Amino acid sequence: MSKGLPTRSENYSEWYNELVKKADLAENSAVRGCMIIKPYGYSIWEKMQRALDDMFKETGHQNAYFPLFIPKSFLSKEASHVEGFAKECAVITHYRLKNDPDGNGVIVDPEAKLEEELIVRPTSETVIWSSFKNWVQSYRNLPLLINQWANVVRWEMRTRIFLRTSEFLWQEGHTAHATKKEAEEETAQMLEIYAKFAEEWMALPVVKGRKTANERFAGADDTLCIEAMMQDGKALQAGTSHFLGQNFAKAFDVKFQDKSGALEYVWGTSWGVSTRLMGALIMAHSDDLGLVLPPKLAPIQIVIVPIFKGDEQLEKIAEKVAPIVKSLKAKGVSVKFDDDDQARPGWKFAEYELKGVPLRVAIGMRDLENNTVEIARRDTLTKETVELDGIEAYLIETLDKIQENIYKKALDFRTENTKEVNSWDEFLVKIEEGGFLMAHWDGTSETEDKIKDLTKATIRCIPLDSEMEEGKCVLTGNPSKQRVVFARSY
Amino acid sequence: MSKGLPTRSENYSEWYNELVKKADLAENSAVRGCMIIKPYGYSIWEKMQRALDDMFKETGHQNAYFPLFIPKSFLSKEASHVEGFAKECAVITHYRLKNDPDGNGVIVDPEAKLEEELIVRPTSETVIWSSFKNWVQSYRNLPLLINQWANVVRWEMRTRIFLRTSEFLWQEGHTAHATKKEAEEETAQMLEIYAKFAEEWMALPVVKGRKTANERFAGADDTLCIEAMMQDGKALQAGTSHFLGQNFAKAFDVKFQDKSGALEYVWGTSWGVSTRLMGALIMAHSDDLGLVLPPKLAPIQIVIVPIFKGDEQLEKIAEKVAPIVKSLKAKGVSVKFDDDDQARPGWKFAEYELKGVPLRVAIGMRDLENNTVEIARRDTLTKETVELDGIEAYLIETLDKIQENIYKKALDFRTENTKEVNSWDEFLVKIEEGGFLMAHWDGTSETEDKIKDLTKATIRCIPLDSEMEEGKCVLTGNPSKQRVVFARSY
Repeated sequence: MSKGLPTRSENYSEWYNELVKKADLAENSAVRGCMIIKPYGYSIWEKMQRALDDMFKETGHQNAYFPLFIPKSFLSKEASHVEGFAKECAVITHYRLKNDPDGNGVIVDPEAKLEEELIVRPTSETVIWSSFKNWVQSYRNLPLLINQWANVVRWEMRTRIFLRTSEFLWQEGHTAHATKKEAEEETAQMLEIYAKFAEEWMALPVVKGRKTANERFAGADDTLCIEAMMQDGKALQAGTSHFLGQNFAKAFDVKFQDKSGALEYVWGTSWGVSTRLMGALIMAHSDDLGLVLPPKLAPIQIVIVPIFKGDEQLEKIAEKVAPIVKSLKAKGVSVKFDDDDQARPGWKFAEYELKGVPLRVAIGMRDLENNTVEIARRDTLTKETVELDGIEAYLIETLDKIQENIYKKALDFRTENTKEVNSWDEFLVKIEEGGFLMAHWDGTSETEDKIKDLTKATIRCIPLDSEMEEGKCVLTGNPSKQRVVFARSY
Repeated sequence: MSKGLPTRSENYSEWYNELVKKADLAENSAVRGCMIIKPYGYSIWEKMQRALDDMFKETGHQNAYFPLFIPKSFLSKEASHVEGFAKECAVITHYRLKNDPDGNGVIVDPEAKLEEELIVRPTSETVIWSSFKNWVQSYRNLPLLINQWANVVRWEMRTRIFLRTSEFLWQEGHTAHATKKEAEEETAQMLEIYAKFAEEWMALPVVKGRKTANERFAGADDTLCIEAMMQDGKALQAGTSHFLGQNFAKAFDVKFQDKSGALEYVWGTSWGVSTRLMGALIMAHSDDLGLVLPPKLAPIQIVIVPIFKGDEQLEKIAEKVAPIVKSLKAKGVSVKFDDDDQARPGWKFAEYELKGVPLRVAIGMRDLENNTVEIARRDTLTKETVELDGIEAYLIETLDKIQENIYKKALDFRTENTKEVNSWDEFLVKIEEGGFLMAHWDGTSETEDKIKDLTKATIRCIPLDSEMEEGKCVLTGNPSKQRVVFARSY
């Protein structure tokens, strides 16, 4: 009953593309590199947003909204930032169209040229720090703890839905602090929040680490990240938290008067996750039958499918089901009773498997007689017949178990595919097998670049919690004190 | 203790601008016509969003997300739509910057010119209907009930925060239906939802009506609207719901197979409200001391201000207040205990008045002895001393009363400032007094235009619920069957 998906082993990449399409998550638009997030996909994103937003607010952050457009000159104010972001971006040069005198629709009005071109934000540090300058006078205005939910645009040449699109949705946190220590603590705190969200909501185990200088955010002194492993063994960067030092404070002249009356530059952070998380969620858990969604993010957590012939049978089942649906909804469970009489149960089963609904409950006439239902778990594809009495509690308990099991499965997969590598020959063999390679590195950008050129593997991160260990760089043999994570990545 | 606001009678326009700024709602940005919505303002917008979103979902709508960019050619597909929207818009012509060879930052890379220019969406009918074409095959795919929360851009020459900005935030609903009747019912239903939201959440009475052909949405067969009266007597259009007929279905070739197997064009609607509602909220209720917020949309509903000298007194008050705060929060009330010892109570009182906090509770040492608190209402500026026992219930009840009172006050104001006008001389006099003029109109665009030229008043709407009445057009004397609402407007 698979819905014509390629299998993961046949063609992982095609499997992903087809799954995104067939499960009604998103599709490509007529505009190059921009996606349309369809209602089913968007409802997962909304659940992610809500959970993250709650965590941000619990830690004292407030939402705000800054302009979509950035004056071209703003980008140049922070030297390394402009290198990173000015290159591939959407540039607005005119503010008016007019009727084509030749009658071919509308053309750009050459008289409506902007004095200074505007860039569609690729990220908002520049526009936000130019505001922070007005918002901060004294230590009493600090910290500023701001978050924004927004769309951003980075002109990508090779795009892939959710993973790399020219326009994407994200949140970007931007904070300003009186001390270096506080800003560093904020950077670390937000990484913890991202890790907690990935693990507890997305059921996605992540490695928390630090980016190397090569991979750092353009304008940051330090970039922390969470890295997840997809089912093809590739790494996916799922969130980043940047310690900006005083770089943007200096670029935008953001100073404050401290308690002693002295003027000091503030310290900054920024941090973000995006609709890329949707790609991670899909690729980490789903199977050849379709999506596998962790219950906490599933738009429909339980579907109830009646097995019936004719209205009379349906009515009897509906009567039995109604109080269960009501009681589940009252407990905050998202449940759907699919009484559509135009589709067969088998078709529905396959459809809800494709959509990743965690629990399917089937109920027919024999079940009514026996006071039972059949419960099918999406994660394990197992079925069992269960007594109707106390079914609500049992279903809720099972949702929790599914959440745990999906996490455990992903963690086991990562553990199996994380290997210590101690020689270059071994590195070359293992990198082809996929997964994370834990290897020593001599700490230089040259070596990192060379390894990337030779193998397409990059240093995903220097793990925050790995032990110090004397060793030799896997490529150069130079001394190293810690293993880092190498992998090919999305 | 007013925070240096101009009064409404002195200069209504300046009062509004200063209030927006001083109450920390929003500010102008470095980008012409684009605003920054600050945390306090954004938290009101979030409450609006949540309430509206819940209503949309209750009526079966789903959120989705469509691209920010629209190919220029899309705009031209619906003839009247392009006339309305192609003119003042942000045009993207290039997709890359490069370093200026002269060393002056970055310049547009002339080699990165787009083949077809992209428009930043002024509204999304075109891009959404081009998707609907792929989403609709048979009657079983209908209705499509889609909503999007997004930013849009209309290049405005004269901007005003919240009321008219080049970039604004909004929701835009887009639906497709099998029958004309269904689409008309949807158009009416969404207008009802907007009216309900305005009246029950914003405490803003609105007139529900139909736009004249002149004021109709570009591409619609019929535009319904809600119109509110501001304190200066001007009208503000607070939301619109459009019946699109088959215009966009034909422009984008969206057909479906009906039950008989015949191919038919679908019927469409679109409807939206924007951050303009923030402007309406401010201008409808606030006074010379600052914001007056209806409790349902107030980020802080109750503030508790301790009156104390020294830590010991503060501790005693805090101890008394803690269980009240806890109990209020558990009941879903947003309450803040302001124990900042760096600001005096009088300063705080003025600050919370400025910010429109509906209820202020002051508690000092004498209150502790007497087991009382002092409660001040923001809407009436009245104070009373109340027993601490049962205070939570009393506060919650008072919040409800404030919500009702603010609505009633706005309704009374509108009633007082709505006048029947029966002659042109009378019209000329009354229009200068402000408010809504209920007058007969001969139904022609010529007369409407002429009245606008002579008086700057437009027909805000033809009320949906007004009685039929034989009369003569206030300007031409030609016959008319119904009074319409004339007003000057934002």
